[in-house]
Amino acid sequence: MNFRSDNTAPAAPEIITALTSVNESTAPAYGEDQWSKRLNERFSALFERDVQVFTVASGTAANAISVASLAPPWGAVLCHREAHIECDECGAAEFYSSGAKLVLIDGEAAKLTPPALEEGIARNARGIHSVKPAAVSVSQTTERGAVYKPAELVALGEIAKRADLGLHMDGARFGNAVAALGCSPADITWRAGVDLLSFGATKNGAIAAEAIVCFDATRAEEIARRRKRSGNLFSKGRFVAAQLLAYLENDLWLKLARQSNALAARLGEAAAPYLSHPVESNQLFIKPGPDALAKLRAAGAEFYDWGDGKSGEARLVVSWNQSEADISAMAKALATLR
Amino acid sequence: MNFRSDNTAPAAPEIITALTSVNESTAPAYGEDQWSKRLNERFSALFERDVQVFTVASGTAANAISVASLAPPWGAVLCHREAHIECDECGAAEFYSSGAKLVLIDGEAAKLTPPALEEGIARNARGIHSVKPAAVSVSQTTERGAVYKPAELVALGEIAKRADLGLHMDGARFGNAVAALGCSPADITWRAGVDLLSFGATKNGAIAAEAIVCFDATRAEEIARRRKRSGNLFSKGRFVAAQLLAYLENDLWLKLARQSNALAARLGEAAAPYLSHPVESNQLFIKPGPDALAKLRAAGAEFYDWGDGKSGEARLVVSWNQSEADISAMAKALATLR
Amino acid sequence: MNFRSDNTAPAAPEIITALTSVNESTAPAYGEDQWSKRLNERFSALFERDVQVFTVASGTAANAISVASLAPPWGAVLCHREAHIECDECGAAEFYSSGAKLVLIDGEAAKLTPPALEEGIARNARGIHSVKPAAVSVSQTTERGAVYKPAELVALGEIAKRADLGLHMDGARFGNAVAALGCSPADITWRAGVDLLSFGATKNGAIAAEAIVCFDATRAEEIARRRKRSGNLFSKGRFVAAQLLAYLENDLWLKLARQSNALAARLGEAAAPYLSHPVESNQLFIKPGPDALAKLRAAGAEFYDWGDGKSGEARLVVSWNQSEADISAMAKALATLR
Amino acid sequence: MNFRSDNTAPAAPEIITALTSVNESTAPAYGEDQWSKRLNERFSALFERDVQVFTVASGTAANAISVASLAPPWGAVLCHREAHIECDECGAAEFYSSGAKLVLIDGEAAKLTPPALEEGIARNARGIHSVKPAAVSVSQTTERGAVYKPAELVALGEIAKRADLGLHMDGARFGNAVAALGCSPADITWRAGVDLLSFGATKNGAIAAEAIVCFDATRAEEIARRRKRSGNLFSKGRFVAAQLLAYLENDLWLKLARQSNALAARLGEAAAPYLSHPVESNQLFIKPGPDALAKLRAAGAEFYDWGDGKSGEARLVVSWNQSEADISAMAKALATLR
Repeated sequence: MNFRSDNTAPAAPEIITALTSVNESTAPAYGEDQWSKRLNERFSALFERDVQVFTVASGTAANAISVASLAPPWGAVLCHREAHIECDECGAAEFYSSGAKLVLIDGEAAKLTPPALEEGIARNARGIHSVKPAAVSVSQTTERGAVYKPAELVALGEIAKRADLGLHMDGARFGNAVAALGCSPADITWRAGVDLLSFGATKNGAIAAEAIVCFDATRAEEIARRRKRSGNLFSKGRFVAAQLLAYLENDLWLKLARQSNALAARLGEAAAPYLSHPVESNQLFIKPGPDALAKLRAAGAEFYDWGDGKSGEARLVVSWNQSEADISAMAKALATLR
Repeated sequence: MNFRSDNTAPAAPEIITALTSVNESTAPAYGEDQWSKRLNERFSALFERDVQVFTVASGTAANAISVASLAPPWGAVLCHREAHIECDECGAAEFYSSGAKLVLIDGEAAKLTPPALEEGIARNARGIHSVKPAAVSVSQTTERGAVYKPAELVALGEIAKRADLGLHMDGARFGNAVAALGCSPADITWRAGVDLLSFGATKNGAIAAEAIVCFDATRAEEIARRRKRSGNLFSKGRFVAAQLLAYLENDLWLKLARQSNALAARLGEAAAPYLSHPVESNQLFIKPGPDALAKLRAAGAEFYDWGDGKSGEARLVVSWNQSEADISAMAKALATLR
Repeated sequence: MNFRSDNTAPAAPEIITALTSVNESTAPAYGEDQWSKRLNERFSALFERDVQVFTVASGTAANAISVASLAPPWGAVLCHREAHIECDECGAAEFYSSGAKLVLIDGEAAKLTPPALEEGIARNARGIHSVKPAAVSVSQTTERGAVYKPAELVALGEIAKRADLGLHMDGARFGNAVAALGCSPADITWRAGVDLLSFGATKNGAIAAEAIVCFDATRAEEIARRRKRSGNLFSKGRFVAAQLLAYLENDLWLKLARQSNALAARLGEAAAPYLSHPVESNQLFIKPGPDALAKLRAAGAEFYDWGDGKSGEARLVVSWNQSEADISAMAKALATLR
Repeated sequence: MNFRSDNTAPAAPEIITALTSVNESTAPAYGEDQWSKRLNERFSALFERDVQVFTVASGTAANAISVASLAPPWGAVLCHREAHIECDECGAAEFYSSGAKLVLIDGEAAKLTPPALEEGIARNARGIHSVKPAAVSVSQTTERGAVYKPAELVALGEIAKRADLGLHMDGARFGNAVAALGCSPADITWRAGVDLLSFGATKNGAIAAEAIVCFDATRAEEIARRRKRSGNLFSKGRFVAAQLLAYLENDLWLKLARQSNALAARLGEAAAPYLSHPVESNQLFIKPGPDALAKLRAAGAEFYDWGDGKSGEARLVVSWNQSEADISAMAKALATLR
């Protein structure tokens, strides 16, 4: 019953197969191989418009390069107080951007709302003495497992554009969001005003494959330079490209995401009395209290404490390969709490 | 007849097998898995002393994190004019170090010599108005395929220590150096005063696996922070660890390196009249003139121009999986030049 | 009736005289002149222990160099939400530190309290995935004109040391604090654990003279390098040194600060019904509502809106050369509000 | 006989007077005072076109902000091997630009020539793996006292524009150059393609007054932000503005520069047998050998060794207030060397 993180999951067999299948003879290095060269086209088809794709080593690299490409060193990047770029990347956004400032916004389920975003922009538009609002970063799904609906993103995107801010989306669990919404990837990205997307595959079945999807061609060179300069341009690029191609092939990514979402929903029913937020993707947050968490652990459940670490809140993440048995066992353990 | 780069080679079958073999069930993320946790011990055995190992995404990341950990932002890093950190990493060392300066030193076959290093240090010790010499970076093998002998490195290491400079080694082709020298890895690293080693496996048979080997425990936390902050701490760390473990297992790394070194030596005999430098590892540099290079290409050879790009010099890199047929064909093509 | 800022005041006549008096013949450049060389001794006498002094161009430079010398790029700097380094320096701390993160703490009158500081440290000590608490920065006087008592600073200093954090003090109005407390400068700096002090003179009668006072000799070289590298080492250093020497001569600094504190206190009595905080130095904050502020402006008062900009709060700063007539006139204008 | 540097000179009486004269009552802070607000107009008249002026604390700050505004972090800045930004600013250009690389070019008398510049650009245009040529920085006068003629700068400017590089001029001794050439300031700046000029006044009679003159309005906001963020926006801006206005008033700057140039020319005649380069401004370089330098020092002359520090080369700088007696005495001392 390991619900620690989808990072603990293995890779999907299709991904392993893809990796093996490209391991033949020589191939040009640094993204000039035939697989890497297919990425732009493949992602353009997926997003229903021309995009440029830049593979990187981690979600942190994807986020930090994106943020740095949207905000100058004296820029402010508005994001949720619980955003991954704020809490979990050891200052990567500040490093890559040469010192931009993250301005934190509160919101239920780690979501930004239009009024909160507008207030954050207004509060930080103080002229030369202060940093300059330059970008907004949203997470889809959020760090609390919530999913922005297309219209919600459109509203945020309009605010961003009106204030001349770039819009970045941290899509570490982008597949879970698309699977949950049943929409086109375009609907929650460029059609809503997203300029740069961190497209994650690692958590949802890849080995290590993340990509920056660039919807704004004028930023492509800067991204390419930042990627190279940060050591994220792989010499044997075919192996990352192969993962991403396999990930999209036959909608593998959506199949895996639907699976974890569905099991999370089932688990959510069992956890209903304790949910901090409605279950919308593959992450659940429960708050049954410290004693209850101890009991769940005693029953064999593994997970992280969440929130302030004192009030007995926990995060449960359902992975692409989570077994039904895990769900049933956890549901049973939850049932004993009442 | 592809001699473009060892980066164009596929991965060794043992590496692929290793990757597949760790793809079972869940494993703790971010380097807490059982394979990652064996790296320190494994490399400590290899280097005959306690070391700490930090896996990263690329040689550029390994080099840049190392250099930044040895030099403050106002530091000077002395390296050869043709060093990879100077020529081929798009300013990664400057990025990671927040603006340290690379001070360039000339030397035959891309090697630093003691007098040249001493002169470079003296020339740059000008007090508060200038950057402060802080580190030396050497490449083993060099960018011209030369191999420093242990005594040569000891001499450089003594100069560095006397001037209170850190010593970094770019070991993108470290295996080829050890294979060529037949020495212990310790002899050309910490025993010679090396503080941090970029240990490369990608070029010599891995998919993407590089590591910073830290011989100075006081620098470990800084390296860990810089790795995380730059997006080089992998969530599914087991897949990189598996490659490195397999790479060392049964001396695979030395077997592969000996192979490419040996074929390069054979090719060197055929290219003897044109060699820019003696062949010491898996890279050859020939200077038969522009017309001759055109003939070689017409015969099917692939390689990069080198040097100033005008005088008809070229680099030939022999990969771990290079076929004997390639060598024979190239030798034949070279023979027709006379 | 200009209460906009003590930055709008001219320089004291003693400062101008001093400047003129050092303008004779040649003097060694870059701080080697006789006046600059007296600074360490002069400040050491003032602070009752050996200190090193580094003059810089602005309070922003003093703060940013100090913060950068206490926090690594991956460090967190804890400060009040209204701190000058957070709100008014366009990201200087992030720039100089190569991307450290300011962690914001709330507190009445822009003061940090021990519990809030401890909570802030605890909340940010999350291991490798997050930035690492590295320093605390307090303002004396605070951005709300409050003054930390020696014991309050000792308490904060102890928390900082226990958590292995450096302690910086933004003393843009340090003179007003010492004048208000009647204590020794040592009592509110190194005796309380302060490592680096931004000692401001510009607001309190100088032309442009700020200094970093370094109580921790191990940080001196780093500060010297950061100062040079940021363009803050003046070639004709005598002119800044002369200002600082005159500022301390015959306690000019305290005389001027006492004057503005005293007038502020008088004004505080007149403003009693509207004060946001008790008046402790030369800044007052009143909240009589938007209409009242409009009336004050109609009566000829100049000042900045403060707080959220909507609730009718204002800041009134009394300068070293403020006339008694200004105070009387403003008191009268305030009286008409009732 | 102090020929160490024009930095050792005092300020001109007109500058001191100007400073005193603006020290009346209150004035808006941060460049909103009446004197600061006249700078744009005054410099626009001087340069015969609209310019924007940004005062800073030092030539190092002016240079570094300029370079950073012309080159991205992954940019290469081409400059002479002896350029001040390379040798004497402790890595300021790298700091402000977040890690751009200075690419060094050789040339007689510290001048760039068109062929050398073209070669430097070509040598560094190697695609994504290398930094990208982004800017050229020239010094007028050069670090060897040479003066670029307008046509020489036009030639360099054309190369820069053709290669899409920004052009910066380090004008720490700009007055000496204009005085020597007798041209319009426009002829050696924007008419030749200069985008940003570091306009120095400190060495030529000011206390501390340097300015970035911006000929490219699209870069103004970036410069303003970098200035604020680096602590170079003075709160009491009137005192710097006053210096600059007085410096230009009645051509004071040219009067002072002509004076030092003329005396340097006289000294040059006396030093003719030993000159490293022809004397073109207020700096001389002589190479009479180590013994001769010792004799000059024994005769009371003060100066810095130059070049490699071994071959007996020295720099003699003539200041705006140098006495004719100094020149005669030095001429006499030089005469005894024969």
